[in-house]
Amino acid sequence: MTSELERTDRTRVRRLPERGVYDRATVNAILDEALYCHVATVDEAGRPRALPTIHVRVGDVVYIHGSTGSRTLRGVRDGQEVCLVATLLDGLVFARSAAHHSMNYRSVVLYGTTREVTDPGEKWRAQSALVDHVCAGRSEQARMPNAKELRETMILAIPLREASAKVRTGPPIDDAEDVDLPIWAGVLPIRSVPQRPVDAPDLPRGVPVPDNVAHYRRPK
Amino acid sequence: MTSELERTDRTRVRRLPERGVYDRATVNAILDEALYCHVATVDEAGRPRALPTIHVRVGDVVYIHGSTGSRTLRGVRDGQEVCLVATLLDGLVFARSAAHHSMNYRSVVLYGTTREVTDPGEKWRAQSALVDHVCAGRSEQARMPNAKELRETMILAIPLREASAKVRTGPPIDDAEDVDLPIWAGVLPIRSVPQRPVDAPDLPRGVPVPDNVAHYRRPK
Repeated sequence: MTSELERTDRTRVRRLPERGVYDRATVNAILDEALYCHVATVDEAGRPRALPTIHVRVGDVVYIHGSTGSRTLRGVRDGQEVCLVATLLDGLVFARSAAHHSMNYRSVVLYGTTREVTDPGEKWRAQSALVDHVCAGRSEQARMPNAKELRETMILAIPLREASAKVRTGPPIDDAEDVDLPIWAGVLPIRSVPQRPVDAPDLPRGVPVPDNVAHYRRPK
Repeated sequence: MTSELERTDRTRVRRLPERGVYDRATVNAILDEALYCHVATVDEAGRPRALPTIHVRVGDVVYIHGSTGSRTLRGVRDGQEVCLVATLLDGLVFARSAAHHSMNYRSVVLYGTTREVTDPGEKWRAQSALVDHVCAGRSEQARMPNAKELRETMILAIPLREASAKVRTGPPIDDAEDVDLPIWAGVLPIRSVPQRPVDAPDLPRGVPVPDNVAHYRRPK
């Protein structure tokens, strides 16, 4: 098995091609770290639509879910094409010139045709994986869905095949003639930082914050 | 002038309508705080495409920009429809039941037809606003674009008309029969936190980090 994703006309990074990354490990890591993604679809009238949603990668499949009442996901049930984008912001890049300002980021774009998950076993595994994607180990703690709740949840699978990553890291790159201008240049790293957990107001006394929440961190 | 945005078939929030917000102040605040957005388009073959990009709101217009070499933006130059989504994650919502897990977030979805900005004055103001959107006051510090750089930058305007926000705040809401389960429930707030600025390796000695970077914060 190759660790390179196939480059198609859509996934080849043409603008700043040195930022294009096609190896599965990088693509997987970005999908795994990103808490949520944006899913773009085309509506009945041929117009673009996009919404943020939670996703999870399981091997070479990405699952998204929603209520069966969701207009957006309802529109993609029957094998519709989607474009899923997961983006992680790592920092702001300050150059001397406005034109070279940038951001350090890691993003994945995945194109694919959705398949509604109907097999109860796969649906259950995908649902557990979605819960654990947001917080590792949570599916062992939460009350998992009963049959009715599982029926009311729609899960869509997208094959992780036509995808690429785009990554920018490092300092600003200015034109040579700008480097000695008396203008600060550098990077302001930005991190997504969990704060102190807040108990639900109706939490019974004596139920402690579990370790996976108290010491929350994303996979790296 | 009304402070309510018009509700169209596309912007009315149907799924969990209590989360729908249509007042301009809320929509503006989310667009202003979000560092970047995702822009969805439809490609020549009728397939969805989306990419992260920087935006800025100026009054009732949202500007996005890119190189004139950018495939994505090139595709939307000529009055094409786009869907722009800006999303802010505020926290993870842990319920007792997996089905009621959620996220606290604020998002804006904007539909519109792009217009390429060709007027040099508007283009200059939009370019400055894009720089200041990422860091207030930066356009006063950076070397702003010369005529050639401004020509090489494509700026697209989208009227801020057909838009709505979706906001979730507060604790988890479990089914009554689950509340007394011995499962922790609550919210893990998540914040985007600037770290210590890192000087560019080629920064001449003695150029200090400006205050707007050293004490960086998003507008609230």
